[in-house]
Amino acid sequence: MMKAIRNVGFIGTGNMGAPMAGHLLDAGYGLHVYNRTRTRADELCRRGAVWHDDPASLAEASDAVITIVDAPPDVERLYFGAILDRVKPGGVLIDMTTSSPRLAVRIQAAAAAKGLGALDAPVSGGQGGAQAATLAIMVGGERADFDRALPLLERIGRNIVHCGPAGRGQHMKLSNQVMVASNILAVVEGITFAFRGGIDAGTMMKVLSESTANSRLLGVYGQKVLAGDYAPGFFIDHFIKDMTIALDEADSLGLDLRALRNALAMFEELRRRFSGEEGIQAIARLYA
Amino acid sequence: MMKAIRNVGFIGTGNMGAPMAGHLLDAGYGLHVYNRTRTRADELCRRGAVWHDDPASLAEASDAVITIVDAPPDVERLYFGAILDRVKPGGVLIDMTTSSPRLAVRIQAAAAAKGLGALDAPVSGGQGGAQAATLAIMVGGERADFDRALPLLERIGRNIVHCGPAGRGQHMKLSNQVMVASNILAVVEGITFAFRGGIDAGTMMKVLSESTANSRLLGVYGQKVLAGDYAPGFFIDHFIKDMTIALDEADSLGLDLRALRNALAMFEELRRRFSGEEGIQAIARLYA
Repeated sequence: MMKAIRNVGFIGTGNMGAPMAGHLLDAGYGLHVYNRTRTRADELCRRGAVWHDDPASLAEASDAVITIVDAPPDVERLYFGAILDRVKPGGVLIDMTTSSPRLAVRIQAAAAAKGLGALDAPVSGGQGGAQAATLAIMVGGERADFDRALPLLERIGRNIVHCGPAGRGQHMKLSNQVMVASNILAVVEGITFAFRGGIDAGTMMKVLSESTANSRLLGVYGQKVLAGDYAPGFFIDHFIKDMTIALDEADSLGLDLRALRNALAMFEELRRRFSGEEGIQAIARLYA
Repeated sequence: MMKAIRNVGFIGTGNMGAPMAGHLLDAGYGLHVYNRTRTRADELCRRGAVWHDDPASLAEASDAVITIVDAPPDVERLYFGAILDRVKPGGVLIDMTTSSPRLAVRIQAAAAAKGLGALDAPVSGGQGGAQAATLAIMVGGERADFDRALPLLERIGRNIVHCGPAGRGQHMKLSNQVMVASNILAVVEGITFAFRGGIDAGTMMKVLSESTANSRLLGVYGQKVLAGDYAPGFFIDHFIKDMTIALDEADSLGLDLRALRNALAMFEELRRRFSGEEGIQAIARLYA
């Protein structure tokens, strides 16, 4: 017998997490929050969320815990240091960080051993998607846990896809990032080459967007690259993190993703020479 | 005073050229043909085209000459060895080979000195587009020559864009190929990574095609990569030729296209280890 989810613990109330958690408050869930920087949870607490000074206390108060934090080491510390030991049996754990598929498998196994459900559920759609509750959510884990978490996830996103057992949500999200890595280089190299060859902006955008070279990223970033507009969007720092996880995962599968490896080296050089706090289209700086 | 184009010389009646020339026959132009392998012009000659044993004789009989041959050295030999000396003043020369922008500039200058117009007008859309007369045509050259050639080009393609002075048609086409090089690697690496991680085909295609990673090539090649279907499509040999021209052109602009360089090295390895006569999606073989 699974009890209904009433109290949700939310860890990580940053740019993405804060609006996501806000939607759960709006839906009437009891919301418990913890964040490394407390002030970033203030607004949620004013609206009725309960602040916890540590993840363990939050976990004890929650039927479901959602985490969206920086990187796999943060996820590992939270789950194995607090959450898995403190949430009562029957609870559901949902990690929405873009993280390691193998770590998701380890968390799910540890959770199952304690009578908990665990899902990996990374998102796509950025801060805009988080605010509008239109995020795409790629979910790995047991079908029963997915079904149980679905009412929560439907408050946060649209396009919610169960991708398979534990780890597959992460793997699906990383597949997306693997493609984005080469697609953004395609956009930047194609446009830079056309520009330097004297093709005017209107002509190149018209021809390329009607050609076999068209891509969603061309629409999103083409004009920005031409204008030298490198505002994020999607931060270089986050992208490097995602690519690093993907390469590590590929390695564990005996798969050498050569274009991704090349892209990661270029983005690391970009961060070294410029900044990690611009948008990924700033890779155009390397061609200046 | 420009005389009307009545007689068109067509050099290169291969997979692309033969259907293109056929559309001009259908439109009532006098068609003169030359091809390295004569038998590939037989069908056109049965339909009324006049065979010439050499390009010079063809050039003398033509008000406009269209060439669509293998590579820049072929183009250079044809234009500087025969066409430029033999077409009568007032004629228009149209090279539809994917070739070097700088060669196109040289041809146009030499043509102008002899009272001829010259256009570089490479196409996109493959054999299917050639047969259906729906090719995209990217044109470089003088506006007046473009206007004069337009009735001819409209028999061959749709989406006919004047991209600027001599060389810009080639440059625009190469920009497209620069983007395709990274886009096809994006598709292959993303799909291979998802597949090896155990994501099922339907799930990955659904999620990726709705994501920021979507591209026209994902739609064209995604299922083929999953099915191991490497039939061309777009030949590896032709793609290597185009990438080589693009890298050479980038070099002349002081531009290092690192993702393109990496892609070219991979496609050369693919040809060495397997074949150049499969479709570009066969780059998936390097990840097997």
